Amino acid sequence: MKTKRTLQVLTAGCIALISLFACTFREGKKNKEAVNPVIANILQRKSVRQYRERPVEKEKVELLLRAGMAAPTGRDLRPWEFVVIRNRAVLDSLAAALPYGKMLARAPLAIAVCGDTAVSEKLWVEDCSMAAQNILLAAESLGLGAVFTAVYPYPEREEAVNNALRLPGRLVPLTLIPVGYAEGIHSPKNKFDPEKIHYETYSR
Amino acid sequence: MKTKRTLQVLTAGCIALISLFACTFREGKKNKEAVNPVIANILQRKSVRQYRERPVEKEKVELLLRAGMAAPTGRDLRPWEFVVIRNRAVLDSLAAALPYGKMLARAPLAIAVCGDTAVSEKLWVEDCSMAAQNILLAAESLGLGAVFTAVYPYPEREEAVNNALRLPGRLVPLTLIPVGYAEGIHSPKNKFDPEKIHYETYSR
Repeated sequence: MKTKRTLQVLTAGCIALISLFACTFREGKKNKEAVNPVIANILQRKSVRQYRERPVEKEKVELLLRAGMAAPTGRDLRPWEFVVIRNRAVLDSLAAALPYGKMLARAPLAIAVCGDTAVSEKLWVEDCSMAAQNILLAAESLGLGAVFTAVYPYPEREEAVNNALRLPGRLVPLTLIPVGYAEGIHSPKNKFDPEKIHYETYSR
Repeated sequence: MKTKRTLQVLTAGCIALISLFACTFREGKKNKEAVNPVIANILQRKSVRQYRERPVEKEKVELLLRAGMAAPTGRDLRPWEFVVIRNRAVLDSLAAALPYGKMLARAPLAIAVCGDTAVSEKLWVEDCSMAAQNILLAAESLGLGAVFTAVYPYPEREEAVNNALRLPGRLVPLTLIPVGYAEGIHSPKNKFDPEKIHYETYSR
């Protein structure tokens, strides 16, 4: 009886210690990553241009779009439309037509973020860029690789995308974002530069 | 002795259960929040225009700037400069000069994100908008409130900021982002709209 009880005390004690240790370790790891997982993800995001053949799950595509539409917009006008492209023929035609879009031929998915100039003439570029950044950050957090490829303000690229996606005249394709599971290892750049920071005023 | 041992078993058992429960509960809460903390933060971000008097810690300001400079830029040109404004007189003069900048009179801090048109003539608006979005998301994750206030493309606002911050001609202030600890409760908008999503092409 005495041995059994001692064993119970030891077992319960061990479980308690392991659980507490697991919790503490998890917190510690988080802190080391860079204060919090959100900032860690911002610093970890990188442009990925090589993808595996693995398709992107429907649930993840919806999360990317939800993230995109959570961006702020001037006067809350939400001047955006999103085209989700998974059709091989459409992706290939875009890869062929765009000088910097060759990676589309190997991407399982691309999202076109288009600005509605009839809804917000003045701030659609800002609003759609912030939506695009949300998509890039969400992709990073979901284990996906993506890259911002500029379509606007290059008329020949805009025309190629307009034709491939049959966009109405009021919509301007700001960016095409190929998305997929990264092939190979990609590292983020450290672009922090204290010389880009000024205090109170630019010139003293 | 017997009572003492029983008590030990019970105590250790309780600690184990509480620890395990705490861990499980934390995980459960995270999942419910929206798949992962990054996407949860994107969906939780809101525009905050009322601030408490509490200043923003220097360490947090640096994290905001690190986040800003982690945004992608066309051809990796990094066409940005950041002006950190904490001086009451400068903040007040901006509040007085900007029609939509009244909240600056109560903000302990503002960050001006400026585009260097000499570095990237074509993509500085996109690049600086994505940097601004990183700053807004980082602020949300640090328990701070912030809001994107557009300066460009409004010539009279640009002039007011140019004068207050003594910007050289090649720099255009894209946005002024007041930052502080929120006063009151602010909720995010749910802006998800399936009608903004199109598949393969815009028109069938």
